[in-house]
Amino acid sequence: MFNSVQETLPREEIEKIQIAGLRKTLKYLKNSNSCLKEKYKHIEPEDIKSLDDLKLLPFTTKDELRDCYPFKHIACDISDCARMHMSSGTTGVPVINAMTRGDIAQWGEIMARCLSCAGLTEKDRIQIMPSFGLFNGGFGFHYGAERLGCFIVPAGAGRSLMQLKLIKELEVTAIGAIASYPARLIEVARESGFDFRETKLRVAILGAETWSDEYRKRIEEEMNVKTFDIIGLTETGGVGLGIDCPARAGIHIWEDHYIVEIIDSETGQPLPEGKEGEMVITTLTREGLPLIRYRTRDISSILSYEKCECGRTHVRVSRIRGRTDDMLKVKGVNFYPSQVEQILLKYKGLSPYYQLVIETVKGKDEMTIIVEKADNGITQKELEHLDLELYDFLGFHSKIQVVPEGTIQRVPGKAVRIVDKRKKI
Amino acid sequence: MFNSVQETLPREEIEKIQIAGLRKTLKYLKNSNSCLKEKYKHIEPEDIKSLDDLKLLPFTTKDELRDCYPFKHIACDISDCARMHMSSGTTGVPVINAMTRGDIAQWGEIMARCLSCAGLTEKDRIQIMPSFGLFNGGFGFHYGAERLGCFIVPAGAGRSLMQLKLIKELEVTAIGAIASYPARLIEVARESGFDFRETKLRVAILGAETWSDEYRKRIEEEMNVKTFDIIGLTETGGVGLGIDCPARAGIHIWEDHYIVEIIDSETGQPLPEGKEGEMVITTLTREGLPLIRYRTRDISSILSYEKCECGRTHVRVSRIRGRTDDMLKVKGVNFYPSQVEQILLKYKGLSPYYQLVIETVKGKDEMTIIVEKADNGITQKELEHLDLELYDFLGFHSKIQVVPEGTIQRVPGKAVRIVDKRKKI
Repeated sequence: MFNSVQETLPREEIEKIQIAGLRKTLKYLKNSNSCLKEKYKHIEPEDIKSLDDLKLLPFTTKDELRDCYPFKHIACDISDCARMHMSSGTTGVPVINAMTRGDIAQWGEIMARCLSCAGLTEKDRIQIMPSFGLFNGGFGFHYGAERLGCFIVPAGAGRSLMQLKLIKELEVTAIGAIASYPARLIEVARESGFDFRETKLRVAILGAETWSDEYRKRIEEEMNVKTFDIIGLTETGGVGLGIDCPARAGIHIWEDHYIVEIIDSETGQPLPEGKEGEMVITTLTREGLPLIRYRTRDISSILSYEKCECGRTHVRVSRIRGRTDDMLKVKGVNFYPSQVEQILLKYKGLSPYYQLVIETVKGKDEMTIIVEKADNGITQKELEHLDLELYDFLGFHSKIQVVPEGTIQRVPGKAVRIVDKRKKI
Repeated sequence: MFNSVQETLPREEIEKIQIAGLRKTLKYLKNSNSCLKEKYKHIEPEDIKSLDDLKLLPFTTKDELRDCYPFKHIACDISDCARMHMSSGTTGVPVINAMTRGDIAQWGEIMARCLSCAGLTEKDRIQIMPSFGLFNGGFGFHYGAERLGCFIVPAGAGRSLMQLKLIKELEVTAIGAIASYPARLIEVARESGFDFRETKLRVAILGAETWSDEYRKRIEEEMNVKTFDIIGLTETGGVGLGIDCPARAGIHIWEDHYIVEIIDSETGQPLPEGKEGEMVITTLTREGLPLIRYRTRDISSILSYEKCECGRTHVRVSRIRGRTDDMLKVKGVNFYPSQVEQILLKYKGLSPYYQLVIETVKGKDEMTIIVEKADNGITQKELEHLDLELYDFLGFHSKIQVVPEGTIQRVPGKAVRIVDKRKKI
């Protein structure tokens, strides 16, 4: 473990740290430059007596942060900040997270814990494949690997042939990437006769998208690696909020830096262990953008507060199933694209590239699932079985359209899974 | 100044540091993992009595480093290295520079000096536009700005509209970029009605390509900034080897970290002050890739060892005119593309985009200069005058082809100025 003292704290200690951190963050926020401080005008930090009091505090939403563009939500002076990262802005005005030197040290610490949790040490050579820039992915891995002392191959996004060449020739042992990218690496490896078994690669740390267990299985088999699911978002300080461990018993959230709650999206009420809902994050140590009860829109559940097999005591949550905003509602049925992926990828004859196209036909929703053949293709019998399985899950019939491998566009960055042509009301 | 003690050392002190550094580097290299150490088998570091003895040491060439791909030229163990950067490999096998933590600190130090020399302080907001990745540009600015304490907007390459938006909305005061990129920014600014005078931008630090004084004048006028020419190469540890100062009296090379010589490319003999030739660099403090007399292939000259108006005592060299490998020989005449650029850009009716196309017609060299019209275009009279000026400089007639603005492809990264269609023998 990178920080065995903090990562194995007893639950009572964690809670003490969290209450103190929450009070400190509230106090700091109330006296800060952030325009959000008005929300806490009538709240006294010392009135927080237990973690249960957290639920008395108001939520913070993405829309509130957007209204603060560019810097009105930043708690300190920008001249006290060292850098910034920014959400993509694809769903609206982007959100900027301006970071102090303390924030960067905190980011390095939690990312170093994540890399170490994935089995990396200072002996490892890590190839960083998310882009370095306004997106936080590349720099998150960068700061973590610098802190842990790995050798960094700063490849950035794209140029798959070059990526493979470097993995092999530089004897790279680990990669960090956007979850959908290994599918492209595998594809290019096949086309060019590249064999992952002739490399020293053993670990792939993947995040920034939801990815199914079936996809995971496939990546692990084909790349001959162990994968780790890393989570995080620009608003909470970037990638590194949590990661799953070798015990593969859920994603540990670093609780000395964050409080995690799962709430009912509709009512806002906290949900008990095991219940699926929206993940809400409170930061305990962030300085540029401290957040109280930030609604991440990611869907997860608390798995356990018990000590994990891996020895870590920090809470485990389930892998993220989707985001409230990518939940689809078709013919009245709610589901996440990752649930469809989980079914599709059981079929070896299908590639990991797919798209769900939804349109209105004669006033009704219709969904076409475009799937790509992999090497040997899918038989008529398998196709019929897939149709059955999908119907069993969705409760309605969707069209399955099989296209040749390579048809769906390979994009750098996050994959485009959904094409929703329905008119928005 | 970022490091006023080191940057203003008296000449005798600089020389003492250089002799000690040279001996130390030689000793270190002789006992290192580098396969290049064989070159120094018969050389005793203590035999170096003065800087004049430098000329007794053998040169190091890019081809030698290429033969060492990936790591045979690295002096320490890769597990003692923190990261690497790599030359583009467009002209052959790439060269990797693996860097220790000490090297990164050294890089941060010299880049912080460069940023400070360009007038930046910890109050500045710098938008970093070279790409972050294997190319060293983005990370060089990153480490320097971290060290100096600026606020970093890590934009990376491309997305010109977004770049402009961020400059304005985030009140950016300085940019770092590949030298040809501001031409694109200016173009997009015009198309979108963006006015640099409504921003807080005042400094542009440009490098990685040769750029003429006429281009410089144009950027400064149109962007309302002061520009600074920064140099460096992957092999010597990346961008930051030197920069010109507000006195604009040449490029200071940080002599407590590097020894610079100018040699005759043909004979290998050192040239005196004022004579133009190939720049040769010896590193004094690098650990991953220490270099003795590395032939950079960049063309420059020693301007002065005297103290500069700006107060710095470190040697000044002329701005780089080109590289030995981009010197053109057409109809028996040797010249650099930047010399043609210098003539073209005197004409306001031409854009900063141009290409020199050289081909063999009936067994003879022919050169066509493709130039792009800017706003108001170029008159027939001006064109005739340009023709005269070019003939005056080149001594042969070239065809001038005027094309509409936007014809020449805008590429991310370094500009493509030369299209040489002649058959190589």
